[in-house]
Amino acid sequence: MIESSKIKIVLVETSHPGNIGSAARAMKTMGFYNLFLVNPKCEINEISYAMASNASDVLDKAIVSNNLEEIIGDCSLIIGATARQRDIPLEIINPRELSKEIHFNDFQKIAILLGNEARGLTNKQLSLCTKGLHIPSNKNYTSLNIASSLQIILYELLFESKNELSNINKIDKNDVATNDKLINFFNHLDIVLKEINFIKDDRPMISRKIRQIYKKANLSDEEINILRGILSAIENHSQ
Amino acid sequence: MIESSKIKIVLVETSHPGNIGSAARAMKTMGFYNLFLVNPKCEINEISYAMASNASDVLDKAIVSNNLEEIIGDCSLIIGATARQRDIPLEIINPRELSKEIHFNDFQKIAILLGNEARGLTNKQLSLCTKGLHIPSNKNYTSLNIASSLQIILYELLFESKNELSNINKIDKNDVATNDKLINFFNHLDIVLKEINFIKDDRPMISRKIRQIYKKANLSDEEINILRGILSAIENHSQ
Repeated sequence: MIESSKIKIVLVETSHPGNIGSAARAMKTMGFYNLFLVNPKCEINEISYAMASNASDVLDKAIVSNNLEEIIGDCSLIIGATARQRDIPLEIINPRELSKEIHFNDFQKIAILLGNEARGLTNKQLSLCTKGLHIPSNKNYTSLNIASSLQIILYELLFESKNELSNINKIDKNDVATNDKLINFFNHLDIVLKEINFIKDDRPMISRKIRQIYKKANLSDEEINILRGILSAIENHSQ
Repeated sequence: MIESSKIKIVLVETSHPGNIGSAARAMKTMGFYNLFLVNPKCEINEISYAMASNASDVLDKAIVSNNLEEIIGDCSLIIGATARQRDIPLEIINPRELSKEIHFNDFQKIAILLGNEARGLTNKQLSLCTKGLHIPSNKNYTSLNIASSLQIILYELLFESKNELSNINKIDKNDVATNDKLINFFNHLDIVLKEINFIKDDRPMISRKIRQIYKKANLSDEEINILRGILSAIENHSQ
């Protein structure tokens, strides 16, 4: 069972009021209600409400913020929708893989980010994500708008919830740490890797690749504690 | 492999020009092009084309008819979308079951019927169908419009097609290192962790937990090389 209350739908720099309304409608049809707008380039207006149809309650409760990192701070899985499949230093999964991932791990909050209509999520925004999400589509016409994308993603999550085969024991699930804890670990890691002369400031790529390894592992609190223990041991041994 | 040329999308008594355009767009994003309008209650107009975005070719080729039975005459599977799950003398399947059904059978043409926005397909129209199709949704808000419904149904068909292809390419895609390389990394890791006094011989549990972190990450050759580079840097720094 996927708890829809855990899922944050985060629209980043959206520029058309109608798209915010259609997104709200798509969310509600699949049973999702938590809408966040980060740095919207437009207001929620009467066009939004017209497109939302009877999902105006989702718009009423939408939270507007200018701080993406704050919105995703309590999330242990951050998914960035992307039309690109390559040249991104992120593991790319599809909506069905996402629904399985959510089932087989015990994430705290989960954020699903969708970028601006014209350019999608920037590389910087994607770098804050645990994984990228790509929706299979016609390679000659990949013009999925925000609401269409959400319709498909959230349908997969709803479908997985209704699928009785995927009921597994919660105790077996992996208890994934929040993004804040992960970021603190990454910062500690960078300090130690510089101290032992493994990374230099002019090589950000290698640091991203190392982070990617740990993002793939869906680290638990206990695992982060173990890894930070190793970092401290390296620091103590060096002195 | 599902041949999209076999699939006829049949909108019955549609009353809003914009919905015809959005339907065309949803079809093209998933690679489907054959649109039929049976007894439409409106014209294809400039609103249709605006909503179709760059899927105007689908609208241009749309076939308009007043004879549903003629349109579905060459079909061996006729699917009627319905919001109702009971009180219909038809087997009801969901979009995933439909995609499996098409995949595992050799149908000639296949028709997918979507009814009028307000009342759906009539009982008489449903009686012409082989099966009914119900899309799982929020039971408190089942307001899926024509384009949203098509987006989900055709995504399932496309996904089934691509899934088959991606299984063939799996070996190319998954660049996971061999177990030998992983074991060599683990042995190197143990040596370094003992050197920095993080693990002692009498605590095998912590070593197992650390290995588990890296097993979860499905490490590639390159990632193992990076991690072993870090281990070597720790060794060099300690000397």
